[in-house]
Amino acid sequence: MANSPSGDSMTERLVRVLETFTTERTVQTAAEIGRRAHLPSSTAHRIVGELVDAGLLERDEDHRIRLGLRLWELALRGSTALRLRQAALPFMASVQSEIREHTQLAVLEQDEALFLERLSHPEAGANITRIAGRLPLHASSSGMVLLAHAEPALRERVLARPLARVAPETETDADALRRVLARIRREGYIVAPGTVEAVSTGVAAPIRDAGEVVAALSVVLPRDTDPAASVSALRRAAAGIEAALRADRPF
Amino acid sequence: MANSPSGDSMTERLVRVLETFTTERTVQTAAEIGRRAHLPSSTAHRIVGELVDAGLLERDEDHRIRLGLRLWELALRGSTALRLRQAALPFMASVQSEIREHTQLAVLEQDEALFLERLSHPEAGANITRIAGRLPLHASSSGMVLLAHAEPALRERVLARPLARVAPETETDADALRRVLARIRREGYIVAPGTVEAVSTGVAAPIRDAGEVVAALSVVLPRDTDPAASVSALRRAAAGIEAALRADRPF
Repeated sequence: MANSPSGDSMTERLVRVLETFTTERTVQTAAEIGRRAHLPSSTAHRIVGELVDAGLLERDEDHRIRLGLRLWELALRGSTALRLRQAALPFMASVQSEIREHTQLAVLEQDEALFLERLSHPEAGANITRIAGRLPLHASSSGMVLLAHAEPALRERVLARPLARVAPETETDADALRRVLARIRREGYIVAPGTVEAVSTGVAAPIRDAGEVVAALSVVLPRDTDPAASVSALRRAAAGIEAALRADRPF
Repeated sequence: MANSPSGDSMTERLVRVLETFTTERTVQTAAEIGRRAHLPSSTAHRIVGELVDAGLLERDEDHRIRLGLRLWELALRGSTALRLRQAALPFMASVQSEIREHTQLAVLEQDEALFLERLSHPEAGANITRIAGRLPLHASSSGMVLLAHAEPALRERVLARPLARVAPETETDADALRRVLARIRREGYIVAPGTVEAVSTGVAAPIRDAGEVVAALSVVLPRDTDPAASVSALRRAAAGIEAALRADRPF
């Protein structure tokens, strides 16, 4: 990445600054932000200062920087993702009260599964997923549902790449994965044991809006749990969410 | 606001662009964005183009612009608000399954109550609150709880301003409001009928983290509902959230 003022726009630099914050790294110094964003120190300090003035970043008493509530507000209040998430949440709560593990909502974003929402029981088993976190399309149950219903060009692009073995049972052979995806389209759900973590099973089903699959609803179960109740809970919930989305359409 | 290139930073212009998107206005043309952000047309088109390239905005087939999922992801994944909201959500779901109206979580932000989360029953009554929406501190039950526990300087600043009559029963007299706030600190909750909308009653209680009030938990009820069950459900939930925040503290 260019360190000189030429070549990259101010917007790109600003995005690079925001990108240095992650689920595991919520607080940084301005110097750390500059290093991680590949920006000259003076540029980093100036951009951070401007973002603090605008409320998109916040500075604590030790001069450490975190994301500001104002950024959260601006990103959410006009968000179309909020419509899907609000339609889904009551039905996710029903799944959650029945299954009492993890219930999640994911959408396709930049060739990955991006998780919009997660409800978890306090004593639920292992689960690597985080809200606003991502998982590979070929490994996670949600990702495979989204990949099964993606445009063929996107699907072939993903299948043409090396498929990382995220866990011992991740399917890394493109032809075998194509058969899994065809089965998802035929059966309307997937049960995927050990494809993301050896100790857990993902179960996922598609959610449609105006005829197109727009999201995947999933639960993560301990590996030895019978998935049958989850499959029917997810399909009932998906039908409910689809009805709520229909009722909410402006036309 | 200045229309010339001098005076306002690129960050300020970018924030002005994002600020044109609201709960009611999720899709705009680049020209509309420029007009509402008080930016020259060429500047608006350039900034919108850069934000679309970076994924913070998205352009649909009709060239209309909406907020991008990438912005949502960047704003949320490193957010400290997410910690509070995740700790609160299971307890909000308990309140919601008992009261079956609207259950909400709000924090103090720039002298207003900013709503981080809302759960609503499909058949619940009227409620003006939106996620990532705001209400005045002196009118909403959540806002009055936050104002009661705010730093004295902030409280006096808010009380010194004209207090808008949001609804017929909004308290607009500073001294009367001071007595309401003292009662909140003494009793640990508020029941506020008709202060935001004539047809509904807000009930709210504070949530503390490390000894400080960090949020307000509230329900909105139809005006004629007895608030007693809500008061006890909110206080139980607030205690549960406080225990979850303690367990989650890094030190």
